[in-house]
Parts: sequence; C-alpha cells; structure tokens
Amino acid sequence: MQIISDSDHYHEYFTSRTEVPNNEHYLEKPPKFLQKATKDNFMYEGHFHEAVGKILLIAQCFAMMPVRGVTMSHPRYLSFSWTHIRTIFCMIFITCSTVDTFIAIYKVLNGPITFNNIEPMIFRITILIVCVCALHLARQWPELIVHWYNLEQQLPPYPSQKDKRRMADKIRMVFFVGMMLSLAEHLLSVTQAIYYAARCGATSDPVKNFLLIASDHLFYIFPYSYWLGWYGKLLNVMSTFIWNYMDIFVMIMSIGLTHMFKRVNENLEKFKNKQMPAVFWAERRVQYRNVCILCEKVDNAISMITMVSFSNNLYFICVQLLKSSNNMPSAVSVVYFYFSLIFLFLRSLAVSLYAAAIYDESRKPLRVLRSVPKESWCLEVKRFAAEISSDLVALSGMKFFHLTRKLVLSVAGTIVTYELVLIQFYERTNLKYYIYIYISYILSVLYKSLNTKQN
Amino acid sequence: MQIISDSDHYHEYFTSRTEVPNNEHYLEKPPKFLQKATKDNFMYEGHFHEAVGKILLIAQCFAMMPVRGVTMSHPRYLSFSWTHIRTIFCMIFITCSTVDTFIAIYKVLNGPITFNNIEPMIFRITILIVCVCALHLARQWPELIVHWYNLEQQLPPYPSQKDKRRMADKIRMVFFVGMMLSLAEHLLSVTQAIYYAARCGATSDPVKNFLLIASDHLFYIFPYSYWLGWYGKLLNVMSTFIWNYMDIFVMIMSIGLTHMFKRVNENLEKFKNKQMPAVFWAERRVQYRNVCILCEKVDNAISMITMVSFSNNLYFICVQLLKSSNNMPSAVSVVYFYFSLIFLFLRSLAVSLYAAAIYDESRKPLRVLRSVPKESWCLEVKRFAAEISSDLVALSGMKFFHLTRKLVLSVAGTIVTYELVLIQFYERTNLKYYIYIYISYILSVLYKSLNTKQN
Amino acid sequence: MQIISDSDHYHEYFTSRTEVPNNEHYLEKPPKFLQKATKDNFMYEGHFHEAVGKILLIAQCFAMMPVRGVTMSHPRYLSFSWTHIRTIFCMIFITCSTVDTFIAIYKVLNGPITFNNIEPMIFRITILIVCVCALHLARQWPELIVHWYNLEQQLPPYPSQKDKRRMADKIRMVFFVGMMLSLAEHLLSVTQAIYYAARCGATSDPVKNFLLIASDHLFYIFPYSYWLGWYGKLLNVMSTFIWNYMDIFVMIMSIGLTHMFKRVNENLEKFKNKQMPAVFWAERRVQYRNVCILCEKVDNAISMITMVSFSNNLYFICVQLLKSSNNMPSAVSVVYFYFSLIFLFLRSLAVSLYAAAIYDESRKPLRVLRSVPKESWCLEVKRFAAEISSDLVALSGMKFFHLTRKLVLSVAGTIVTYELVLIQFYERTNLKYYIYIYISYILSVLYKSLNTKQN
Amino acid sequence: MQIISDSDHYHEYFTSRTEVPNNEHYLEKPPKFLQKATKDNFMYEGHFHEAVGKILLIAQCFAMMPVRGVTMSHPRYLSFSWTHIRTIFCMIFITCSTVDTFIAIYKVLNGPITFNNIEPMIFRITILIVCVCALHLARQWPELIVHWYNLEQQLPPYPSQKDKRRMADKIRMVFFVGMMLSLAEHLLSVTQAIYYAARCGATSDPVKNFLLIASDHLFYIFPYSYWLGWYGKLLNVMSTFIWNYMDIFVMIMSIGLTHMFKRVNENLEKFKNKQMPAVFWAERRVQYRNVCILCEKVDNAISMITMVSFSNNLYFICVQLLKSSNNMPSAVSVVYFYFSLIFLFLRSLAVSLYAAAIYDESRKPLRVLRSVPKESWCLEVKRFAAEISSDLVALSGMKFFHLTRKLVLSVAGTIVTYELVLIQFYERTNLKYYIYIYISYILSVLYKSLNTKQN
Repeated sequence: MQIISDSDHYHEYFTSRTEVPNNEHYLEKPPKFLQKATKDNFMYEGHFHEAVGKILLIAQCFAMMPVRGVTMSHPRYLSFSWTHIRTIFCMIFITCSTVDTFIAIYKVLNGPITFNNIEPMIFRITILIVCVCALHLARQWPELIVHWYNLEQQLPPYPSQKDKRRMADKIRMVFFVGMMLSLAEHLLSVTQAIYYAARCGATSDPVKNFLLIASDHLFYIFPYSYWLGWYGKLLNVMSTFIWNYMDIFVMIMSIGLTHMFKRVNENLEKFKNKQMPAVFWAERRVQYRNVCILCEKVDNAISMITMVSFSNNLYFICVQLLKSSNNMPSAVSVVYFYFSLIFLFLRSLAVSLYAAAIYDESRKPLRVLRSVPKESWCLEVKRFAAEISSDLVALSGMKFFHLTRKLVLSVAGTIVTYELVLIQFYERTNLKYYIYIYISYILSVLYKSLNTKQN
Repeated sequence: MQIISDSDHYHEYFTSRTEVPNNEHYLEKPPKFLQKATKDNFMYEGHFHEAVGKILLIAQCFAMMPVRGVTMSHPRYLSFSWTHIRTIFCMIFITCSTVDTFIAIYKVLNGPITFNNIEPMIFRITILIVCVCALHLARQWPELIVHWYNLEQQLPPYPSQKDKRRMADKIRMVFFVGMMLSLAEHLLSVTQAIYYAARCGATSDPVKNFLLIASDHLFYIFPYSYWLGWYGKLLNVMSTFIWNYMDIFVMIMSIGLTHMFKRVNENLEKFKNKQMPAVFWAERRVQYRNVCILCEKVDNAISMITMVSFSNNLYFICVQLLKSSNNMPSAVSVVYFYFSLIFLFLRSLAVSLYAAAIYDESRKPLRVLRSVPKESWCLEVKRFAAEISSDLVALSGMKFFHLTRKLVLSVAGTIVTYELVLIQFYERTNLKYYIYIYISYILSVLYKSLNTKQN
Repeated sequence: MQIISDSDHYHEYFTSRTEVPNNEHYLEKPPKFLQKATKDNFMYEGHFHEAVGKILLIAQCFAMMPVRGVTMSHPRYLSFSWTHIRTIFCMIFITCSTVDTFIAIYKVLNGPITFNNIEPMIFRITILIVCVCALHLARQWPELIVHWYNLEQQLPPYPSQKDKRRMADKIRMVFFVGMMLSLAEHLLSVTQAIYYAARCGATSDPVKNFLLIASDHLFYIFPYSYWLGWYGKLLNVMSTFIWNYMDIFVMIMSIGLTHMFKRVNENLEKFKNKQMPAVFWAERRVQYRNVCILCEKVDNAISMITMVSFSNNLYFICVQLLKSSNNMPSAVSVVYFYFSLIFLFLRSLAVSLYAAAIYDESRKPLRVLRSVPKESWCLEVKRFAAEISSDLVALSGMKFFHLTRKLVLSVAGTIVTYELVLIQFYERTNLKYYIYIYISYILSVLYKSLNTKQN
Repeated sequence: MQIISDSDHYHEYFTSRTEVPNNEHYLEKPPKFLQKATKDNFMYEGHFHEAVGKILLIAQCFAMMPVRGVTMSHPRYLSFSWTHIRTIFCMIFITCSTVDTFIAIYKVLNGPITFNNIEPMIFRITILIVCVCALHLARQWPELIVHWYNLEQQLPPYPSQKDKRRMADKIRMVFFVGMMLSLAEHLLSVTQAIYYAARCGATSDPVKNFLLIASDHLFYIFPYSYWLGWYGKLLNVMSTFIWNYMDIFVMIMSIGLTHMFKRVNENLEKFKNKQMPAVFWAERRVQYRNVCILCEKVDNAISMITMVSFSNNLYFICVQLLKSSNNMPSAVSVVYFYFSLIFLFLRSLAVSLYAAAIYDESRKPLRVLRSVPKESWCLEVKRFAAEISSDLVALSGMKFFHLTRKLVLSVAGTIVTYELVLIQFYERTNLKYYIYIYISYILSVLYKSLNTKQN
C-alpha cells in the first residue's frame, strides 16, 4: 500500500508541468556567442550534449565528426563548416583512405578471390563508408543535438545531482573500456607483426621488415620507402580507431536514447496505481511521443552507421571462425587470435544489447498503464497503451532489421549453425586426412617392398 | 511552433472537399470516343495512365500487354479485343514460344538433369508464364486503370505543375535505365557468343557458327537453316526483353502505388499537430482506404507476375553464384559474367526495394495520427490509427509472401548462407584437389621409379 | 454509388433475423428415430453432414471412422458404439496393423538404421497413429456434427438451390480426384513390383515372387505361405488407402470450415458500404464467433491427424528427393518414381492450401468492416474488427504450427534449401567420382605397364 | 442455453468478492514465529509453498536452494542467512565444484579442442552457473513466495478439497518421475563404466579401475588415491542430480504459474455468456494482471536458470546425435546411449511444453471475453481483451526468447535439419569409405600380383 497524500504527488506533477513554459521562454533567448564561461556552465545538467562532448573531441583527433563547439556548455554553439580545419583534416583523411582502398582492391583483384583474401579490402571499404557517413552526420549534428537538448528540458527534472551524472558516467565508462580493449588488441597485433617480422623478415632491418608487413598493399605497387611505410601505419592506426569507434558510437547513442526513455519511465513509476486525471496522461503521452520522435530522428541519422557496424561485425566473426582451423605459427599469434576473437564477440554483443535496451525501455510504460485503476482509465490512457503496444521503437539497420533481443538471438543462432557446419567439416576432414595418410602409408610400403624385392 | 491562421488551413481543407462533387459530375459524362485532341489533353495531369502510356506501347512491340488506347489522354478509351492486331501478334508469339519451350524441355530430358542444364528450360517456361499472365492482365487493364483514374481525381490536387510530372519522370527514368542496362547485358552476351563462335565454331561460316550457338535447341532437332536460326534469335531477343520488362513492370506498378500513398501522406502532413474536426479525419480515412483497396486490386491482378519475377530472380542468382566457381574461357566471358551477375543483383534489389516502398509509405500516416492533439482525438482518428496498425498493405507473391524490407533481408540472408556454404565447399575442394594431385604425383613417381629400376 | 432503398435491405436483414427463433424452435423438437424418409429428406439442404456422408461410408469399408448413421438425413441419428460391427472391424484392423508394425520394426532393427531403411516402419507407424486418432475422433463425431448442424441452421439461408450443392460438389470432386490419383499411384507401384518380380524373382512362380516382394517383412520371420502373402497385400492396400485418405480428410474438413466462413462473408458483402444499426453488427459478430468456435472444436478434434499428415508428407518428400539420385532399374520404375513424387508434392500442396484457405476466409470480414461508413461505426463494429485483427483462426498441428500460406512458403523454402544442398553434394560427388575413376584408370594403366614390362 | 438464476451466480461472485478484505486483514497480522503447529497447518490449502516444500528440502541435500523454513506451513517462516548450515554446505559445494571445473578446463586445454572433448567442461561450467544462480535465487525466495502466497489468497477459493491437492500432486508426480528416470540413467552410466573398467581397466583392482574412469580429470593432475576417487565420484553424483534438478525446477515453477492462471480461468468460465457488471470484469482483470505480474517476477528470478537449462539441453542433444554415428564398444553402451538420448529428448520436450503451457493458459480468458454479450460489453472488458491480445506472458530465457509452442517447433526444426545434414554426411562418407576400401583392395591386388609375377 502506497500512502502518499494527494497534495504531495500533485505537487510533483505541477512542478513538472509549470516548468515547460519556462523552458520555452529560455529557448527563445537569442544565443550569445561570446558569453563568458561561468561556474554554472561547468556544472553537470545531465544533458547528452555534455556527456558526449569530450568523446567527440577525441574522435575529431582521428578525423571523425568534424563539428565545432562539441565541448561548449550549450548545443547552440555547435556548428559545421566545410572550411573549418577539422573538416579539412577529415576530407584529407577520406582522400588518403580512398587511394588506400583502391590500392587494396587492386591487390585483391590480382590474386585469387577468397573469403579470406578480401578481408583487408572489406576493412578499408568499411572505414571509408563510415567516414563518409560520419561527415554526413556531422552536418546534421548541430540541429539534432539542439532538438535533443530542447526535449531534455521538457522532461521531468532530475531528482538529484547524482542522477544528473549517471548517463555521462556510463557513456564514459563504455568509451574508456572499449578504447582500452581496442588499444590492447592493436598492441597485440603490432607485437605479433614485429615477432613475425623478426622471424620471417626478408631483410636484416627490423623496422623495414615491420613496415613491409604493416603496409604490404602499398609496397605491392610502390617501391619501399621509410616514410611511406610510416604513412601506411598511421592510416592503419587511424582506421583501427575508427573501426572500433563506429561500434562505440552506436553504443553511446543507444545509451543516450535509453536514458531518455528511462527518465520518462522513472517519473511514470511514481504514479503507478494512483488515480490521475486525463490531462496528466495526455502530457506523459506527449513526452513519450517526443522521445519516440527523437529516436526516429537519431535512427534516420545513424542507421547507415548501424548497418555497417552490424554487418561488419558479422563478417569478421565468420572470417575469424573460419581462420580458427588454421595453424598458428607462434604463441603470440594464438594469444592475439583468441584475444581478438573474444574482443570481437564481446564488442558485437555489447553493441547489440545496448541498442536492444532502447526497445526494452520503450515498452516499460506499459507496466504502469496496465495497473491504472479503473476509475482513472480514460481515452488518453487507452491511446497511450495502444500506441506503445503497436509501435516498434528501436534503432534499425536502414529499416531492414530492428535491433532487439530477438535479433541478437537469431544472429547468434545463425553463427552457431555456421560454426556447427564448420566443425562438422573439420571432424570429417580430419577423418579423411587420416585415411589419406593411411593410403600414402600403404603406397610407401608398396613402393619400398617393390624396391626391396627387385634389388 | 507553427503559426497558421485557422481560416488558412480550413481553406485548403474545403478546397479539397468541394472538388469531389465536381469530379463525380465529370465522371458521369458519357465518354466521347471521337473527341478531338486539344492542348488540354496533352498537358500532364499527373495521372498514372499518362505516365505508363508510352512504356506499354513499347512493351506491345514485344508482344506484351495488348491493350488499345494506352497513349490516349483518358483511360475510358482503353479497350481489349481478341481480334485486334496487337492481341493476334501476342497470341502468335505465345504459340511460337510454347513450341520453343517444348523443344527446350525435349533437349533437357535427353541429357543429364542438373541445376545448370535446366537453366534455358526455366528461362523459357518463365517467359511463357509471364506472357500468359500479361495477356490475362491486359483484359483487366481497362477496368483497373479507370478505377485508378477515378481514385486519382478524388485525391487532394497537386500543389504545382512540377509535382504533376514527378511520378511520370521517375517511371520513365526507371524504365530507361533498366532497358539500357538490359540492352548492354544482351549486347555483351551476343559479343561473347560471337567471340566463342569465332574460336570454337564447327564451321567456317561465322554467321552460321553464331546462329548454331544462339539457337542450339532448335538445331538439336531440326537441320541447320539460315532463316530458322534468325527466327530463333528473334524469339530470344524478344524473350530477353520480356524477362527484363517483367521486373521493370513490377517496379513501375510499385512506383505508381507508392505515389498514391505519398499524395495522401503529403496532404496529411500539412495538418500535423493541428486540431481538425472528426469529419476531416473520416474523409482522410476514406481516401486512405480507397488507396488500400486499389493496392489490393492491383496486387490481385499482378501477384502472379510478382511471384514469377521474384522466384525467377532468386533462381538465376543461385545459378550464377554456382557458376562463379567455373573457369571462364576468355576475358569477354569474365566481363559478361560479372556484369550480368551484378545487373541481376541490382535489378532484384531494385524490384524488392521499390515494392517494399509501398508498405513503408502506407505506414506513414501513423506519424501524423500519433501527434494529433488530445482535443481532436476522436473515434475516427482512433479507427484510422487502428486500421493502419493492424493491416499489412503491400504487393505480394500470390499471398505467400509480402514484399517488405524484412523480406529483402531474409532473402539476402538466405543467399549469403548459400554462398558461405558454397565457399566452404570450394575451399575444402581445393584442399582435396591438392591432395589428389599429391597422390597422383606419388603414383607417377612410383611409376617412373619402377620403370627406371627395371630397365 | 449503390442506390438501394432502405426498405430493400432491411427486408433481407429482417428475413435472416426472424429465421433464428424458428430454427431454435425446430431444434428443440425431440428427435424422431423411426421417421420415414420423405422426399424432403433427400433434397440437399447444403449441410456438411450430407456432403461427407458417402465419403465416410467409403472410409468405413477401409476400417476408418466407425460411426453409424453417416448417410442419414439428420445428424441426430449418428451414434458410436464399441460393439457395432464397424467398430469391431476397425479394432481388428488396428490389431493386425499393430502386429504388422512390430514385425516391420523388428526387421529394421536387424539391419543398418538409415534414413531410407526406416521408411516402411515410419509408414506403418503413421497408419497406426492415424487409425487410433480416427477411432478417437469417431467417438466425438456425433456431438461435433450435431453442433455443426445447429450452427448451419443459424447462418443466413442459401440464396438458391444451386448454392446448396456447391460445398458437396467440391468435397466430392476433391475426394474423387484424390482417390483416382492414389489408385493410379498404387497400380503403378504394383506394376513396378510385378515387373521387378518377373525380372529378379527368386522362384519361377510369378505370384509367389510378387507376394514375396509385397509382404517382405512378413516373410522375414514367417516361412512363405500363399494366404499370408495375400493377407499382407490386403493390409498394404488398406494402409495405402488410409495414408491417402488422411490427407483428403484434412482437405474435406478444411473445405467444410471455409464454406462456413464463406456463407458468413457472402452475406456480409451485401451490406458493404451501407448504414446498418449496431444490433445488426452484433448479430453478425455472434455468427462469426460461432463459426470460430466451431473451427476451434474441429481443430481440437483433428489436430493430431493434421500433425501426422503434415509431418508424414514432409518426411516422404525428403526421402523421395534423397532417392532421386539413385539409379532406377527400369523405365517403369522411372515413371512410378516421378509420378509418385509429383503426386506427393501436389497432395501436400493441396492439403496446405485448402487448410490455409480457412485462415484467408476468416480475415475477409475485415474488408467489409473497413468500409463501414462513419455514421454507423459503433462499439460493436469496433469489437468485431478488433477481434478479427487480433485472432488467428486456422487449423493447427497440435498448436505447434498454424496452417497458413506463410507456413507453406517457409516449408517450401526449407525443402528447396535441402534440395540445393543435395544438388551441391551430388555435383561435388560426381566430380569426385570422376577423380576416382581417373585414379583407378591410372592404377590400371600402371598395373598393365608393370605386367607388360616384366614379361 | 444456460438457465442460471441471477441470484445464483451473483452469490458466487459476491463470495469471491467479500473474501478479499478478509484476506487483507489476515495478511496484516504480524507473523508469530513460535506459533504451535495445529492440525490446520497440516491440511492442504493448495498453496504453491506447501507443494514445493519437500522438493526443496531434497534439493538442499544436494546443496541447492539453501532457504530455511521450506516445509513450514506459512511462507513467513522462510528466511535466508549466509551463516546457516545449508548455505555453508552450498558454499563448500560451489568451491569444490569451481576447483573441479578448473581442473576439467585445464585437461581440455591440454588436448585437441573438439565439439566432443569439451563436453565434460561444458557440463561442469553449467553446474557451476546453476549453483550460483540458485544461491542468488535463494536470497529472493522468501520475498517471492510471500508475494505468491498473498496473491493466492486473493484468487477465488477452490471449489473442493480435491482441487486443492491437484497442483501439489502434479508437481510431486513430475519430480518423482524425473528423478526416477535420472536415477536409472545414472545407474546405467555407472554400469557401463564398471563394465568398461572390467574389460579395459589398467590395473587388476576393479574399484581402482572404476574410480580412475569416474574421476579421470582429477587423476590427470593428482596421483591415484582411493579417497580422492570417491570424492570425485560424490561430486559427480551431486552434479548429475543438479543437472537433472535444473530442468525439473523449471517445470515445477511452470506448473505453479500455469495453475495460477488456471484458477483465474476456471472461475471466469463460470460466467461465460452471462451479463455481468463492469465492476466484475474490472476485478477479474486486476486478478489476471496480478498473476501476470507474479509471472514476470518469477521470470526475472529464474530466467538465467531457464536459459542455462534450455541451451544446455540443446547442446547435449547435438553432441549425442553427433555421437550416434560412433561405434559402441558393447551392448551396455548401446542401451545406455539410447536410453540417455531418449531421456534427454523427453526431458527437454517436457521442460518446453510445461513452460509453454503458461503462455497457452494466459491466452484462455480471451475465449470468455469473446463471448461476452453485447449488453455487458463495456470499457473494462475491452481493456481486458486488448491487454491479453497484445501482451506476451511467458517464461523467457533472459528475454532473448519466450517459451511458447512455436519456439519448440522452431528448435525441433533446427535439430531435424542438423540431423538431416549429419545423415547426408554419413551416407556420403560411407560411400566414400567403400570407395577407399575398393582402392585399397585394388592396391593390395596390384601388390600381390607384382609379388607373384616377380617371384
């Protein structure tokens, strides 16, 4: 039994209601561009814009998302310009990357086309697509974030300062863990290459050996050059960052959207089992609807990136599983291979689960609506419930699939089936291998016996 | 905040409303068959009938869709007659094609039945089914188009002359691009055949060699004849046109239907977030419902063609992928093979996506309905929303499957799995191949050693 | 615009309404068991009971569905009794069949267990399960058919005498065609066995040879006996009838249920676009609901048979496809094999499509409800539409799957994938086969050369 | 036509209604901890708590679910404490099991990693996860069962004493049958091991031979010791119990939840086709909703166990099917293998079907609601029907999948496909095997002939 005086929750209810006009008033103020940063600006208000600021800044060092003002206190300072230094840096990277990709394609076309050989080509094409998508997204970013910011103002206020930091902390944690793991994976990869270069290198210069391996596609058409090698390695480092960042970016956007639904839901939970007027439900429905519209806007903006991230992960998992039957030349290779496979699995799973959380969270208001007492059951509640029941609010891969837990299961099922067939093949093959060995053995015995007899 | 005076949108609303009786009046006029063509008749009114006129005329040159009056200004002049020259031409083609198909089946039955060998048989049976379906459709065409035309009159008027041309331009563009690509593909195929005939021809006459290859099934039972060869080639050219036209036709119908939904949606979007009376929503619902009924009628008329087009594309993609592991005799073959495979992929994808657009467009009014303010939320809006939520409006393959983006994904997934298993096989096979070579090598060494020793 | 005077359709409406009390009155009359058959009793009233009477009588000759009174004019004469001659015949057949099945299982367990070898065992177990299910169904049959009969009385009357015969004609046509094809298939099977017996028979007596093949499992444990051979053949003929009847029975029940929905729908169609009072819709909804309840009752009664029929068809199609790669000893075998495979395909497809028709028909009232004018849109119409939208009315295989067109597609897809993998295997195997032949060829050359050299 | 006086069912209705305040009053009484057990306490009241008491007690003997008070008459005596002897026993088992698991992993990593070899590792990891989950569940158990108990008080009372025993009897029967079968399976496994030890044992001491096989992973790193062998065997017995108990536990929870829905449904059925006031439906809806909430709570508590149980069964079925192609050394092995495979199948099927029954039962109120007469059709009934239609109430595997009959079918389909591919492989392989034998035969003939000729 919840014993709360009516006045008490009406107070809450009116608080959140009366705030809306204030916000609107605030939003109509013209943006002051040279406003001095006061202490207020640096206190967390729990906005998504604040939470992703520094993460976008880091991404910009790797030629992604060239938007100005990402670390400013208010999204009105966000702007995109084709002539800004960040954009130019991004354009240069895209140009270099395009050349790199064509060289990789050229190399692939001059050899046998197998599932395995096209891996570097697929990797480079993926990076190129993501870069172009990110550039496109950068142009929409200021508008999208202002929309998001305004919507955040309309939501019920945070109960405490701690709650304001929650989303930002989660986003940073995800970014930090993701980046640390990808750094570890890259360092292992470099170690493996150095180790391999030391053992099987063509020349006596260890740096040259390493660069020959790291930028093999460049030296496929150009003669060896020290600086070209480092240039290729630099591109490779940036590409690896972008390859990991792509997934982390989808996770961060998902966390942001899930958080928006959570704010709506946590506020709704307070009114569970209570008799509220129709106007209350209408307001909540509009709040919920606005978050859905935001979700759709975000999905439209990033669905290409989601698609690329998802299919890329699927491709690399399959390639890695296929490789798992190969012999590893050294212990470093074994460690690198398993670390990289597990990292890939976990990263893919994390992207899927964080994105699926949006859908799960968007269904939760139904619980509250199901327990609305019959006295306050009205057209508005019915409309709210019917809308949640029939709509599917989730990130999508260009509308071809929606990221929900069911999708994760069906993808996992596909990979397991593929792996089972693979295992099947290898168990069979081993059997055959022994039969071949047996046949060769018979043949060699036969050969020897012939020799012995005749001499 | 949208600031539009009430009078302003009520004007729009009444405009579209008062138009309906006018149209009805217009439609009740008896058709004047020998009416002279005035300038009015040649101005675009944005009707589907106008947009597809010339495309159907071209199709009639290849024995498809024998309907009279396709280029006339008004669909009332459309008519079908068994005794008309176009119908007779069509019947002759069907007869010839039937004979051709039986010869192809006869040839297949006299050889080993493999997935690959039945390809020409499947191709000819497909063409025959499509021709019969198109003949059947031609009989329903006048009634269907008159229904469509009347419905177009009831929809809200186009805002500008430019909008009137939009659909026709898109349809023509699709037709033109599709036809150019299929022409290029056919020319490459001819080039390849000529090249092959020149190299491996049985006789010294290049034309004879070419014809022997082009109409091989005819010369399987008949002795060589110059005119029979050209007759076979002509049938083949027409069949190829029909094979491509089939897909383009589904695309064109889809564009037409999508456009109808778009007109309803674009008009609805204007009233987003506004308070409208119940009678307004009732009218829009009836408009929407009429478009749905049109969609169902069109689906009933063409679902057999959709089914054939879809399954045919799937079959040919699988066959081509299976062929991809074969050795190509020449560079021309390689170019032709990849061009034809990519063309097939893109054409199938285009058909699927254009058809899926109907479903996507049919769901869009939900967005407007979700943001209807609570004051104007009424039974009519609820009914409208519930109907859109629960119905699936899309083209279908004889009701077995509905063409949506989810279908595209599941079909793509199937093809990729198939390809993966294929690759698996080939990677394995190559391994085995090397083992066999190794065994033969041992055997040959053994053989030589025996010889050497004994001599 | 439909111009029908109000009085006109109100007449129709009241006609069907006032009839209901009459029916109820009629139903309350005590059944007169020794009522004399008048001409009235033999005129078709369009009842399902009349339509299936003779078909059940034929089935009873083959020990299925031992119910009395199937050809009587009224279902109240239907009765089931354990002591009746038909039931005893049925029990004897089940006993013999059980013994037969155990002998077949014994034979299978004494050989290698392969997909192919277990075919006769699966066949016999299927027959046994179906017989037991049919016996169980026979006990429920009188009650089920009385319920069906009463429901038919409440539906709107048939417009004409011709309409009354429609369902019965369709059911008889399906039964006749199905039985003729299965007879043809069985005769071909016998011909093939005779042909095989004549060629490869162990003894000189052709009848003995034939019986040895036809009842091979019996003679696996018993010594040869002329009468035992014919007894085995008789059991086999009856089993084959039951095997085919099982599918036809599901089709007949589906036709009956579809027809019930059709009667409701055809009557509803008359009131499309008309303004009807709420009480009219309530009545129609109750009618529709009663048909749904009948459908559920029938499904509960026959879902085990549906399940067995469906999975049995799937198993036999897979086995036949697997066999398709075997070599056929004679032309008769080839004809029999392809006839039997195509018959199996068509029968399975027919069962699926007839059963799926129930679902398709059960959705059709939605069309009428979607075009109810807004003036007569009321709670009752809304309830009707919501119920149709959210319910799935179809036959099911023990609730594991529902028979709809989507199911047919997914099953077809599975078979095609299986076939593709099979083809893949065989194309590969053939390749391997040639390699083996090549190796053997090398070996034989080697062998000969050794011989030649050394002599 | 049901003729029941209004007073009659209103009586029933008010009985169930007036009881609710009583219960609430009863629940507000402070729990008396040292209350003496009277006869009342031992009479069955049909509570879930009573039904599972002894089953949990048996589980506690095998270190599962360390909760105090499971056999007490009232759930308020349930408590969990870290310092209680049961909890300590459980913690000791988990510690030993963890060590055991690490040893098993160590053994696996020192051999080739195949699908088959990792079986003992997967088994031990599963047991460990389940134990930890059960410990976690034990902490939530008191609160969960008190919630369940209170809800049971609010449901309509049982009509008779016999009904009160129904659930408990079913749960005990399932537990008893499950445990007997698993005991039989374990004894067969022991027999097989003894038989194998007797035949192929390394030493002359039969006990030592048996223990060496039973605890092979322990003796992989430790020297042989009599007590260590028995310790390993004890751990193995307990693990086997837990492995079986896991599935039985999911079944028991499912039976409990299904029973709750059944009580609601059976009461609702009494009011089918009757005119009841809106307040009646509102009350029933709240009852139904409360059971749904209980179902969600239980799902949240046990979904990890469900997930592990389901995926574990799937894995072991696949492994066993893979093994089915191996040669069995003895008749005991054959019997054990088939018994264990069939037991595994039936257990998995039983878990799936019992769990799916929750979903089936939760849909049943729809039948009653569909036949509510139009006079008493009100907002409350509509809300009730809409909620049942749109919600999916079922146990889930961590929300990745919901346990329904459709899931059972799709899983069965996957296993059958896998089995078909397997059979395919083996039929092919056998063919190849014969070809290899044939080749070896030719080679040996060749060898002999060479020898003969040359001598």
